[in-house]
Amino acid sequence: MLARDADRLNGIVREVAHTHAFPVDVTNIAALEATIDAVEERLGPPDVVVHNAVGGSFGGFLQIDPEVLARNFDVNVMALLHLARRVAPGMISRGSGTIIATGNTSALRGKPAFAGFAPTKAAQRILAEAIARELGPQGVHVAYLVIDAVIDVPWTRERFPDRPDHFFINPAHIAGEILHLVKQPRSAWSFNAEVRPYREAW
Amino acid sequence: MLARDADRLNGIVREVAHTHAFPVDVTNIAALEATIDAVEERLGPPDVVVHNAVGGSFGGFLQIDPEVLARNFDVNVMALLHLARRVAPGMISRGSGTIIATGNTSALRGKPAFAGFAPTKAAQRILAEAIARELGPQGVHVAYLVIDAVIDVPWTRERFPDRPDHFFINPAHIAGEILHLVKQPRSAWSFNAEVRPYREAW
Amino acid sequence: MLARDADRLNGIVREVAHTHAFPVDVTNIAALEATIDAVEERLGPPDVVVHNAVGGSFGGFLQIDPEVLARNFDVNVMALLHLARRVAPGMISRGSGTIIATGNTSALRGKPAFAGFAPTKAAQRILAEAIARELGPQGVHVAYLVIDAVIDVPWTRERFPDRPDHFFINPAHIAGEILHLVKQPRSAWSFNAEVRPYREAW
Amino acid sequence: MLARDADRLNGIVREVAHTHAFPVDVTNIAALEATIDAVEERLGPPDVVVHNAVGGSFGGFLQIDPEVLARNFDVNVMALLHLARRVAPGMISRGSGTIIATGNTSALRGKPAFAGFAPTKAAQRILAEAIARELGPQGVHVAYLVIDAVIDVPWTRERFPDRPDHFFINPAHIAGEILHLVKQPRSAWSFNAEVRPYREAW
Repeated sequence: MLARDADRLNGIVREVAHTHAFPVDVTNIAALEATIDAVEERLGPPDVVVHNAVGGSFGGFLQIDPEVLARNFDVNVMALLHLARRVAPGMISRGSGTIIATGNTSALRGKPAFAGFAPTKAAQRILAEAIARELGPQGVHVAYLVIDAVIDVPWTRERFPDRPDHFFINPAHIAGEILHLVKQPRSAWSFNAEVRPYREAW
Repeated sequence: MLARDADRLNGIVREVAHTHAFPVDVTNIAALEATIDAVEERLGPPDVVVHNAVGGSFGGFLQIDPEVLARNFDVNVMALLHLARRVAPGMISRGSGTIIATGNTSALRGKPAFAGFAPTKAAQRILAEAIARELGPQGVHVAYLVIDAVIDVPWTRERFPDRPDHFFINPAHIAGEILHLVKQPRSAWSFNAEVRPYREAW
Repeated sequence: MLARDADRLNGIVREVAHTHAFPVDVTNIAALEATIDAVEERLGPPDVVVHNAVGGSFGGFLQIDPEVLARNFDVNVMALLHLARRVAPGMISRGSGTIIATGNTSALRGKPAFAGFAPTKAAQRILAEAIARELGPQGVHVAYLVIDAVIDVPWTRERFPDRPDHFFINPAHIAGEILHLVKQPRSAWSFNAEVRPYREAW
Repeated sequence: MLARDADRLNGIVREVAHTHAFPVDVTNIAALEATIDAVEERLGPPDVVVHNAVGGSFGGFLQIDPEVLARNFDVNVMALLHLARRVAPGMISRGSGTIIATGNTSALRGKPAFAGFAPTKAAQRILAEAIARELGPQGVHVAYLVIDAVIDVPWTRERFPDRPDHFFINPAHIAGEILHLVKQPRSAWSFNAEVRPYREAW
């Protein structure tokens, strides 16, 4: 697991067996590359890479600080490019591996309040598609999972205190979907995938 | 299993345990409804319905017999509507159930040689989407699986004798994807799903 | 102008110069073909054909009469196929001509209340796309215009009596868009086109 | 006209009446804003702004310099954001104005050779959509024009010396489409628009 917050990562490591914390800001390319080196040294080359980092923000195009859009591009797109460039050569030489990026419906349409965010998810999806088409024939699976819901974690429960359980998507079920994508046999791979709670309007 | 060819169905019944043959032409609405009655009497109300019937055809809009398009609409769209109308009330009252329709990339774009076919797959997908949005909040899962490949069965091997194995999608892997959709927990359902072989260009 | 209602057509003929009334039910293929013969005899072969017929309906998939979906398919899809088959050969031999079909956002997504309608608009759009890709290189322009609004005509004003003017799309402006598509130079043709009022949410 | 190359701009000014040259690198935000000030001082507030700048590049995600993707994001997305933020308030207060961004099919799909480019066009389209939805109800028209062709200019003729005339899209016809979008009455605006030569495969 890569994330900026070492305390949070270490908390997960204590809770979940076989996890490892590698604190890093994925927009710091040199640090990101050094971290992947450290991961490989400790765990070997990765079979599965999930790009789940997300820089989000709310606000119309006149309200946001333009730097927010640039920052979200670094997190959502440039980090995916650097990750993929770093791990793809090994996956190609092994003829196997999976790279999954997660996004949301912002990747598909631009709503006014997501002006500082949606463009970067759209860019992330199209970058993943370009990578998928290049790596697929070489045996490396790339998929893009749209999570069309608010994820059920402590801070979203605080933010939406009046919502019923079925409003949220269970993070374990997102993980289950990712695991399914990882295990797909190569005669039947998905690129586009999506999950939403059964009561979600779409 | 519902299909027109009783011999073919019975062959599968002999090969695959726990399968049952119900020969019927799904464009014959009265026969279709009687068949579903017979299924329910023998097996109980269905938890999962897969609309995999396909009326296909090749040829530009000037070459085809227009009746082919009308016939494909009956198979691909009207049969789905009748099936869903017949099984949905029970699923709604039980608060569970899955309806899956399978299609291909014709559902997403119109290529000249598919003029007699693609419009009906697009219609099928949009009908499935309307049904999904209505049934989802009632606990019934509807999904549309795009199979972007030639399926590996004896008659496609005959038609494409020079193609390597990886050209084809394995029907067991399609079934695996359908089973995955059926088993998705309701906090994380997919409507759109897609599978293609790893070397397929798209 | 082709439509079922002779009185309405004749009313338009009295109001609008250079218009001609050809009453016909476009789902009656023999009558449709005879009508096109009559048009050609009177006016010569058509340079521009607009398929603006629309069979609409409201209601979820459990509420509608299934025959409504079949009927809408005849109006929205089969009639376009027959029209195109009838006029395309002449356009191909002249190396010019335009066929335009009009639709709405039902062509792009399935909402529950449009289950008896949306599938047929999706089919119409994909059929038009298949025809466009076949005829384009032969000098015949095919376009699909999505009209994302309620059209400002007497019966919609009655149905939405409380809506302000800007809720409606002006039919003259739709005609203007169609004329634009007809006049596009062949180095810069559109297939997909869309119009909506400036205050429409989308 | 804003562009980096003053000589090229001045050449156009000599050829085309009523044009004005404002050399600037649109990724230099301070310079861009000063340039818009200069434009407004000389010509008054702009009624129409066309974001036609394009940072392109070819190469798979493993071949490109990652900085190319970041640079293209600055040209194709950040510059649009800054332009729109600068001109929109005046357009809102006047209740009129048009902002048009031009793109290509890279905005819609990711092909391997466009990994350093397509993500930024997808981001540009989604940003334009978010802006369109915010400004439309305020009387300001935003559109995105996909130019699905190679533009007929001296350097593309050099690059594709063996292609016939009909391979290229005429820049005057692109300008004509932009003018059409600018002149659309507000009851019938387009956001998505597209043009391609009649023989283009798509």
